[in-house]
Amino acid sequence: MRSRISTFVRFVVLVSVVLAVVPAVNAADRDKLLSEPGVYGTFAAFRLDADWVKQGQTTRITQLLTLKGVVEQHREKVAIDVYLLRGLSDRADLLFRIHATELRDAQEFLLDLQGSLFGKHLTDSTIFSGLTKKASYVPGMPDSLKAELKAPSEPGPQPYVIVIPIRKSADWWGLDQDKRAAMMQEHTEVTVPYLKTVKRKLYHSSGLDDLDFITYFETSKLEDFHSLVLALEKVKEFPYNRRFGHPTLLGTVRSLDEIIEVLAQ
Amino acid sequence: MRSRISTFVRFVVLVSVVLAVVPAVNAADRDKLLSEPGVYGTFAAFRLDADWVKQGQTTRITQLLTLKGVVEQHREKVAIDVYLLRGLSDRADLLFRIHATELRDAQEFLLDLQGSLFGKHLTDSTIFSGLTKKASYVPGMPDSLKAELKAPSEPGPQPYVIVIPIRKSADWWGLDQDKRAAMMQEHTEVTVPYLKTVKRKLYHSSGLDDLDFITYFETSKLEDFHSLVLALEKVKEFPYNRRFGHPTLLGTVRSLDEIIEVLAQ
Amino acid sequence: MRSRISTFVRFVVLVSVVLAVVPAVNAADRDKLLSEPGVYGTFAAFRLDADWVKQGQTTRITQLLTLKGVVEQHREKVAIDVYLLRGLSDRADLLFRIHATELRDAQEFLLDLQGSLFGKHLTDSTIFSGLTKKASYVPGMPDSLKAELKAPSEPGPQPYVIVIPIRKSADWWGLDQDKRAAMMQEHTEVTVPYLKTVKRKLYHSSGLDDLDFITYFETSKLEDFHSLVLALEKVKEFPYNRRFGHPTLLGTVRSLDEIIEVLAQ
Amino acid sequence: MRSRISTFVRFVVLVSVVLAVVPAVNAADRDKLLSEPGVYGTFAAFRLDADWVKQGQTTRITQLLTLKGVVEQHREKVAIDVYLLRGLSDRADLLFRIHATELRDAQEFLLDLQGSLFGKHLTDSTIFSGLTKKASYVPGMPDSLKAELKAPSEPGPQPYVIVIPIRKSADWWGLDQDKRAAMMQEHTEVTVPYLKTVKRKLYHSSGLDDLDFITYFETSKLEDFHSLVLALEKVKEFPYNRRFGHPTLLGTVRSLDEIIEVLAQ
Amino acid sequence: MRSRISTFVRFVVLVSVVLAVVPAVNAADRDKLLSEPGVYGTFAAFRLDADWVKQGQTTRITQLLTLKGVVEQHREKVAIDVYLLRGLSDRADLLFRIHATELRDAQEFLLDLQGSLFGKHLTDSTIFSGLTKKASYVPGMPDSLKAELKAPSEPGPQPYVIVIPIRKSADWWGLDQDKRAAMMQEHTEVTVPYLKTVKRKLYHSSGLDDLDFITYFETSKLEDFHSLVLALEKVKEFPYNRRFGHPTLLGTVRSLDEIIEVLAQ
Repeated sequence: MRSRISTFVRFVVLVSVVLAVVPAVNAADRDKLLSEPGVYGTFAAFRLDADWVKQGQTTRITQLLTLKGVVEQHREKVAIDVYLLRGLSDRADLLFRIHATELRDAQEFLLDLQGSLFGKHLTDSTIFSGLTKKASYVPGMPDSLKAELKAPSEPGPQPYVIVIPIRKSADWWGLDQDKRAAMMQEHTEVTVPYLKTVKRKLYHSSGLDDLDFITYFETSKLEDFHSLVLALEKVKEFPYNRRFGHPTLLGTVRSLDEIIEVLAQ
Repeated sequence: MRSRISTFVRFVVLVSVVLAVVPAVNAADRDKLLSEPGVYGTFAAFRLDADWVKQGQTTRITQLLTLKGVVEQHREKVAIDVYLLRGLSDRADLLFRIHATELRDAQEFLLDLQGSLFGKHLTDSTIFSGLTKKASYVPGMPDSLKAELKAPSEPGPQPYVIVIPIRKSADWWGLDQDKRAAMMQEHTEVTVPYLKTVKRKLYHSSGLDDLDFITYFETSKLEDFHSLVLALEKVKEFPYNRRFGHPTLLGTVRSLDEIIEVLAQ
Repeated sequence: MRSRISTFVRFVVLVSVVLAVVPAVNAADRDKLLSEPGVYGTFAAFRLDADWVKQGQTTRITQLLTLKGVVEQHREKVAIDVYLLRGLSDRADLLFRIHATELRDAQEFLLDLQGSLFGKHLTDSTIFSGLTKKASYVPGMPDSLKAELKAPSEPGPQPYVIVIPIRKSADWWGLDQDKRAAMMQEHTEVTVPYLKTVKRKLYHSSGLDDLDFITYFETSKLEDFHSLVLALEKVKEFPYNRRFGHPTLLGTVRSLDEIIEVLAQ
Repeated sequence: MRSRISTFVRFVVLVSVVLAVVPAVNAADRDKLLSEPGVYGTFAAFRLDADWVKQGQTTRITQLLTLKGVVEQHREKVAIDVYLLRGLSDRADLLFRIHATELRDAQEFLLDLQGSLFGKHLTDSTIFSGLTKKASYVPGMPDSLKAELKAPSEPGPQPYVIVIPIRKSADWWGLDQDKRAAMMQEHTEVTVPYLKTVKRKLYHSSGLDDLDFITYFETSKLEDFHSLVLALEKVKEFPYNRRFGHPTLLGTVRSLDEIIEVLAQ
Repeated sequence: MRSRISTFVRFVVLVSVVLAVVPAVNAADRDKLLSEPGVYGTFAAFRLDADWVKQGQTTRITQLLTLKGVVEQHREKVAIDVYLLRGLSDRADLLFRIHATELRDAQEFLLDLQGSLFGKHLTDSTIFSGLTKKASYVPGMPDSLKAELKAPSEPGPQPYVIVIPIRKSADWWGLDQDKRAAMMQEHTEVTVPYLKTVKRKLYHSSGLDDLDFITYFETSKLEDFHSLVLALEKVKEFPYNRRFGHPTLLGTVRSLDEIIEVLAQ
């Protein structure tokens, strides 16, 4: 195994050199894309086909370079995050999260990805998209709660990622706005104890796919995340979820280089 | 990538020459097919098989020419639109919408398409058909609303397409005609703010497949479309949808030449 | 394409010669099988595998001859109809309807079909069987209605075929016989306007598969068929359908020779 | 076809000779396994893969010999029945029913079967197991009914087999024992007219798979079986079936040699 | 078959020698991982692909050595159990249960497993994870019941394994804690007669996958396990299971060496 890894290291050096020669691109304003409302988030999960592992390491590395190339090329317009689902989710091996101001830009990235030498091995795609919106605080929500919600979660690496798509029942949308607001306040209150250790982000997706919301979580304490979901299952709003998960995507947050290293071995 | 594209350009020129030699066919009266009642609309979505991307570019271009040929050949009888779903929908890569006065003509086109060199790579078809009907305004619907419904949507490119199949519950069909009409008026009213930016078309499909309606949308403002669906989820008619989506097909409107260009690269 | 077709025509002539040499078989009493009660109807739909289209035309024609041979061979015992679903249904490309006095005879035909050179390309089978029964008119059904039901549908070609499997809910079977009869009379009455243009046949299948009924329709006026289903959705018996379709098979009625011609090209 | 069959006959003779040389094994007490309580019944259905039919006849016969060999080898411990589903069920081509006093013994047979040259072509397995129990007559069930239930069904070949898995609803298990007993008596009474022509056997499977019961039927009169199921759909116990079928397996009872003959051709 | 096995035995000897040379690793504290709260349990089931059985025995044995190697390598951090599902479950052939204090460690093992020469043949993974917690006895639960629950199950081999995933309905989580506790006490009481012969373990998985609990059972008396499930179906808590099984995984407990032996043959 040692010698295999050293082959890999040599290739990585080579890649760095090759990529360094590529003229620098202006990266998309990643912070803005990740924090502002009116941004589209596309979640694209894939399995690697059966041929992938049957190839030699050198071939795989060559192909992984095209993955790196495509990501670099599109960073100008979209923000791309990668996650390793293999071993923790049976739905897919890899997950890409793409933030873009226009959904077309996410499509362009995915077209180039799937058209690359690496992308030819991506199958069984699971794709859904949503839109970020300004947090609409429930009228009458105490200021103390609002303040707590704005408190940043703990800094540092949050190794686990969980994505849970949600579809509300027709009954939910038929409720008076007041009733929905009251239930969302209860929902929000039970999340407070977990704000520090579980980072969260919400996407609205009615009409864009067979969902109403995509909920995204990062945490270094999976047990806290489990307790959070358990608490949410007990609030009055929960029975209005017609679909919660299916799939629940669970994986680990990885840099693109880590993904490449795992897949090269 | 530059040299690859120039190869492609040379081929496209060749194609244009070849197709120019083909005797001109009388195109079907596309405007009539797209606007009149009593026309069948067939939605046929396909995935490209795993072999497609593994072929060389020249082979792929040769095959794409047969796609162009089949479309040209059938334009005499049917109106054909193409959409790129890849990257935005996991259900399919390509969507064809075929309008025909007889469903047999759509079948003939699809038989020739699937029998072509390109069509041999089309798999996992999703097919459903519906019928256009004269808009039956609800009795008692205010004239002002009728006028608003007739107002044209904004001209210019509408890059996004969304197709949502709908099956109503048995309860819906069991309602008094009056109750259904009142609910459809409420449904119609909430769509008014979006008439300008979201183009729509309705197909009736009871008996032709496991659906009652196929709803088709084009928009350049996806956020408006999302708001429209959100508004529709809140009207009294919504709980009578037993199936809404499944699949929701989301993609971009493309010319046949754009599709060919994307697939050739 | 011309030259391809002439190759095909030459083969067809050859086939005719070959088949003419085969000693004449006594065809099953087709009329009797199609009209009498106590006959089993098996619906067997198949997809053609990916290899089929990748073969040369000569190979395909040779294999299609074995299809023709198997059908001829079994005509002594069973009545066989063929339909082209490709292009109109995503569930299958071909549909066989086999009528037999013993279900074993349908099985023997399908075993020989699947074992033939052509049959090796048939995959993803969808199979269900039902039994014809004497029409049991509802007690108290007006004689005028009975007479209307006996009126023949319009003669001539009925190009479209639709097969809709139905499973009733447990509630349906739990109703009093009287209530079921009253609802079936209402059901029957709404079908009267369509008796002339929509040909129909009913198979009973409780226990033979996961269905209670198989409904079979032929029509040259698809719009009438659509209106018929729409009318049936509004009667009181409709909510007692737990499954209606899934799949709805839609296709065109074709002779065996037409099927062979389409698949050879 | 004649010459093909004679090749086959020569191989069968060879097989007989080969197997005759194998030292005689003590067959499991088949009668006991098929009639006593406390015996496990495993139903294992398989499809033949696409490669199977593409092999030459000689290769297929060689592989079928290994099927025969594995069955012979395990007859010492388990009772094995085989059924041909192909042509009547779309779920599978072959069904094995294995009776064993320990489920491990059925597993050992299936491991050897799947590991044999023939078994390498078995795919898409559908497997479920249940346990036979002493018939627990409902308290208060009339002796006349009990006597009728004990009457043997008509002797002679029963060519059709039907297997229907059943899962009861949670409501069923929540009923008082008395209510369940009363309903089972009604259920039993409607089966009486069919006792002579429809042979039946019940397996209990709660916990062993996603079922509560496996019901097994043999009959030479499929129409009687259909009438029996129709009658059962009308009793009060029927709505408590959450799953009835899915799959309904329908096929013909065959000897191992018949199966081999069919698959060799 | 004898000679095949002797080839196998020779290889096993070779393996033992090879592995003996590998420097001894500190095994994870298996007892602690299997008994303490706060441990993650990952269930990963796989099918062997169609190519696996088509390889020669020597190739398969070489690949099985890599399975053994990967397991040995990760024993330092995680506790790994293996089960043979083939022949008893149609969902998978092999099941791995991995206990780890961090889910990442289970992922690392599965990444290495799937990346190994053996792992390249593993497909159709089914993966779900849960967390062990301290048993939270219902308030007011009699001490006698608590004592019974702590009694060890019968020692010795428990050859059968059953894994049943459970999702509770939203109604369950909406109940008062008292009502849930009362129902869980009833649930617990009916399990008492089976404590000796059916070993059990509970994992909490809300949020980690589309489940709330994973229930794991080992027994040498399958009939007792069946009776236990039958008893549980009758308690008041049972209707609150929205999903019970799907899949139910049934197999036999095997050592890694036994698995290797079975797969090598």
